[in-house]
Amino acid sequence: MEHPLKWLEITLIILALLGIWYSVLNFSAVKRVLIGRPMRTKELHAQHNKLIWFIALPILSADLYSSVAYGPESGMTELAGLGSNAKWLILPITFSTVILLVILILSYIMGVLAYPKGGGAYAIAKDNFKRPWVSLIASSSLLIDYVLTVAVSVSSAVKNVSSAYPAMAPFETTLALLCVLVLVIVNLRGIAESAKIFAWPTFGFMACMILLIITGFIDECRHGFIQSSTPSFGTIPNGLTTLLLLKAFSSACSALTGIETISNAVPVFKDPKPRNAIKTYIALGLITGITLIGFSYHLYVRGISVNSKNTMLSQLIADYFGHGLLYQIIIWFTFIVLILAANSTFTGFPQLAAIVAGDGFLPRGLTNRGDRLGYSNGIILLAALASLLIAAFRANTNALIPLYAIGVFISFTVAQIGLIRRWRRVKGSYWKLKLFINLIGAIVTLIVALIFAVTKFASGAWIVLIVLPFLIFISIAIHRHYHQVALQLRINPKEDHPEPHHVTSIVLVSGVHRVVNHTLSFAKSLGTDVIAVYVGFDDESIDKMEKKWEEWGAPCRLVVLKSKYRSILEPLSRLIAAIEKKKGEHDHIHILVPQFLPKKWWHNLLHNQSALLLRVWLFRHKNVVITTVPFHLKK
Amino acid sequence: MEHPLKWLEITLIILALLGIWYSVLNFSAVKRVLIGRPMRTKELHAQHNKLIWFIALPILSADLYSSVAYGPESGMTELAGLGSNAKWLILPITFSTVILLVILILSYIMGVLAYPKGGGAYAIAKDNFKRPWVSLIASSSLLIDYVLTVAVSVSSAVKNVSSAYPAMAPFETTLALLCVLVLVIVNLRGIAESAKIFAWPTFGFMACMILLIITGFIDECRHGFIQSSTPSFGTIPNGLTTLLLLKAFSSACSALTGIETISNAVPVFKDPKPRNAIKTYIALGLITGITLIGFSYHLYVRGISVNSKNTMLSQLIADYFGHGLLYQIIIWFTFIVLILAANSTFTGFPQLAAIVAGDGFLPRGLTNRGDRLGYSNGIILLAALASLLIAAFRANTNALIPLYAIGVFISFTVAQIGLIRRWRRVKGSYWKLKLFINLIGAIVTLIVALIFAVTKFASGAWIVLIVLPFLIFISIAIHRHYHQVALQLRINPKEDHPEPHHVTSIVLVSGVHRVVNHTLSFAKSLGTDVIAVYVGFDDESIDKMEKKWEEWGAPCRLVVLKSKYRSILEPLSRLIAAIEKKKGEHDHIHILVPQFLPKKWWHNLLHNQSALLLRVWLFRHKNVVITTVPFHLKK
Repeated sequence: MEHPLKWLEITLIILALLGIWYSVLNFSAVKRVLIGRPMRTKELHAQHNKLIWFIALPILSADLYSSVAYGPESGMTELAGLGSNAKWLILPITFSTVILLVILILSYIMGVLAYPKGGGAYAIAKDNFKRPWVSLIASSSLLIDYVLTVAVSVSSAVKNVSSAYPAMAPFETTLALLCVLVLVIVNLRGIAESAKIFAWPTFGFMACMILLIITGFIDECRHGFIQSSTPSFGTIPNGLTTLLLLKAFSSACSALTGIETISNAVPVFKDPKPRNAIKTYIALGLITGITLIGFSYHLYVRGISVNSKNTMLSQLIADYFGHGLLYQIIIWFTFIVLILAANSTFTGFPQLAAIVAGDGFLPRGLTNRGDRLGYSNGIILLAALASLLIAAFRANTNALIPLYAIGVFISFTVAQIGLIRRWRRVKGSYWKLKLFINLIGAIVTLIVALIFAVTKFASGAWIVLIVLPFLIFISIAIHRHYHQVALQLRINPKEDHPEPHHVTSIVLVSGVHRVVNHTLSFAKSLGTDVIAVYVGFDDESIDKMEKKWEEWGAPCRLVVLKSKYRSILEPLSRLIAAIEKKKGEHDHIHILVPQFLPKKWWHNLLHNQSALLLRVWLFRHKNVVITTVPFHLKK
Repeated sequence: MEHPLKWLEITLIILALLGIWYSVLNFSAVKRVLIGRPMRTKELHAQHNKLIWFIALPILSADLYSSVAYGPESGMTELAGLGSNAKWLILPITFSTVILLVILILSYIMGVLAYPKGGGAYAIAKDNFKRPWVSLIASSSLLIDYVLTVAVSVSSAVKNVSSAYPAMAPFETTLALLCVLVLVIVNLRGIAESAKIFAWPTFGFMACMILLIITGFIDECRHGFIQSSTPSFGTIPNGLTTLLLLKAFSSACSALTGIETISNAVPVFKDPKPRNAIKTYIALGLITGITLIGFSYHLYVRGISVNSKNTMLSQLIADYFGHGLLYQIIIWFTFIVLILAANSTFTGFPQLAAIVAGDGFLPRGLTNRGDRLGYSNGIILLAALASLLIAAFRANTNALIPLYAIGVFISFTVAQIGLIRRWRRVKGSYWKLKLFINLIGAIVTLIVALIFAVTKFASGAWIVLIVLPFLIFISIAIHRHYHQVALQLRINPKEDHPEPHHVTSIVLVSGVHRVVNHTLSFAKSLGTDVIAVYVGFDDESIDKMEKKWEEWGAPCRLVVLKSKYRSILEPLSRLIAAIEKKKGEHDHIHILVPQFLPKKWWHNLLHNQSALLLRVWLFRHKNVVITTVPFHLKK
């Protein structure tokens, strides 16, 4: 019974997102309420969209910082089979992760120094590699990872809440999908607004984590640094292999995704932008490193085990504070901050997609700004993809982790190599030191990416390794298409000018009544040949029509066609072919179709939608110009 | 977990039927394979569509005759709670049913005599009552019952098969829905063809039932008419109330639905039509009556009990023949004949709907004949409604029965009263006898309808009693709408003639390129004022456009509009309002929108569908004529 529910959910997601997309495209009251009043393009550059660094910190760091809630646990999940002898490995694994964090932050500060106007991996790669496919590796792997960030963060957020309330466990997938829906709506409202709403909970979560770590140390000062539950340190557990250790390390590295957010987002900082961005990077690195080490250390001292029904964070909190109010507060802050991590991706993905689309490598619709200045199509695309992942993996964080982070490390590597090329080209102050830092960064991230690809290949990384080249291929195909269209559209303004040609106008008539009169009036207002065409299904109706036409004084030439198969398309098609034979190369055939517009929408069900069908069919099959002449019914 | 599956199925049904509908509307290879080559209107009256009476018998009787498979069981299900003391009641209940059958067949023969060109309850009511709502009662209740016939017959067919193969029980709903799908395809192919395919299985089923009854009598001759399993006769079981007895009787009367099929279908008979129809009626009455009595009698002698997992028919067959080949043959014949019952409704419903729609009481689309001369829209509508019922009631025959048959008896009553009025008006030979027969018929069917309404109200009949007046109300509203439209469309051919007016053509330009050149060429070919309109989102792009336009030699007047909200709709809307203020009462605003037509359909994703959105929006909000000028891309 699992499958039907899954597909039902997928159907509902698609319907919900199509609904939102539709309302975004159309003026409507619903949209006003959900999304807010439309904003002028000017407001894009207005001051209130710019962030000071300590407000930017929670918004741009939610992605990275929130990972502490699942990073160490992901690592230990890989080793869970080895028993409690493996528990001490959380310490070396976390230390390696923090060292990697330091290297990455330093590398990214170099990135901000090199591109003070901002620029993520894609911009860096584009600036330093001639071949577009290199920058497409960076952009595509990041886009894939953004989708996974939303899926993983939201799933982990819901998992934490259901750890606290086991009764919610069966509804995890539905809740996760609901969260994504709320994120779509919030983000369609605009960036700055979400920032102000969301800054404080992240601070709150940071405060909670610090409180948890301090409580831990106080506890350890009082009860000893080795407690009854502390597992032994340094023994090599049976069955530990290098591969397994690397697997655990790479899973723990999922805690490091989100570092790129700040460097992508330099333009949203207040001036001086690069300085503020670097400040944010240092503050973020410090607090994340401290939290990771402190949290892992207490997990070790308390000997917390991996439990698929209760996150390690939830267990540790319960250990120190019981299940009281404080536990509730921390769990809910964790939930909110993980949702914010997904939220920060809702800024990153559409921005990156818009930049790549602006270069012609993705559909141009992704560059359209919506009413509230966000890239609506990108926001909805991200939500759709993430929702599909959540539904397909039943909101299971640990099943999603193997797909995760590999993209980020690939794009890290591309960006670092790009920076190395830049330092060698541009040089500048201390360029050798900067080059050295990026060289270390490039080597380390490449190794991590390789570890990922090898250790996680079978458990899901292969999906990414298939989707990534496919996406690059598609991007190049899209670029080629746009290029070919541009060539086809190019004209010589000196030579090519609009020239009038001969036009034959065909009016489809179904009798002698007001709609026909109205349409013929319009046709006669144009200075073209007008032919009225009547399609009859039997001789009787044709005779009747011819008689009526005479009575009416034959306002123009009438051609009657008989349709043996009760279709107006087939005889019309023959008539068009006959006219096309006679006409000149540039002459136009112009078909006028009257269209009924009833007062109430449901009245449409009562009228044959032949005008619509005719349009669709003619458009697909014939080279004709089609005019729809509306006739508004009064009742 | 039941609900999600249900809604999934409903979604799939809707998608499947929309798919079929779409393929019916469009020429396509799929349609050719499924539905066959299109047929000329002439072929409608060709000989091979006409049926001789003993071929018509199985086709038109499947609905009625197949009911013997579930009629007696439905009655006994109501009494199942009373224990085996109630089993003998099957005999008086079946006898009453057969008496009712005789009365109905006689009444219907009167109907054929009165309307030798054919005519069901609706036609009879229309001819004899001035007020349209009386005939609408007849048509609406019949239409509702047709939908229920499909749902009940198909569900019962699947139930019989799953009685034989209990492993199929969980898939009943899905199988039932698949059967409906097959019926749609077969019926879209056309009436005559389905007749020839389907005539023999019904004969086969009749033969099987006769064989079963004869076997029963031989068995009783050999083992005695009272056997060890025969329940006692004539004892009043504890808890039997008049209401319960009436309920059982009315459920058993569900076996009588389908009598009207022949009188509706008189035109499909060979000449002399009425004579052939009456022959068929008599043959059908005889065989149905014999089968009902024989079948019920053996059920009584063998003391068969109601069992929700095994139909009474299946039990009786197994009793006589075991589970061997004969059992299989009879079960499959039962299955096929019940499917044919649904199939005969696929002729009745679309025909009746087309007649009512032709009178303007239902959407006119129901009168359109498809490629194969069947009323495609009616066929698909019936399938959609029946599928929804099957999905909603999980293909449970006994849950559907309370909704069933009430409609048929209401329409019977209306028809009988109509006939009474006719005899009093027209008179003719033996008119008093005929009137008397119809009077008896009217009284009896009215009583049965009332019994139905009262005894089944709580268990589902209320749904019909709500839907019926609603449908009548809708029908009258539809009729009023068509009438009002006709009044609005009426013109005086002496006075109203098409007059040329002033037309302002607006061409939307997005730059200077081949598409714009092409569209402007067409606009200039019409003898109208042409204005090019450019909507820019910032000053820079507007300046650039103006410069380009000058370079191009300004082929016509250019109006530039600035959109603060990045929407082309809003400034365009203001421009239209400004022009509307100036123009005369009958002047037209004509908007030309270029539309890209890429070579491959997926290229559409790469181009903003602004032409489409613009059309939809303008149509909904403004009184403008819209011309779409296609530009076919070559790659």
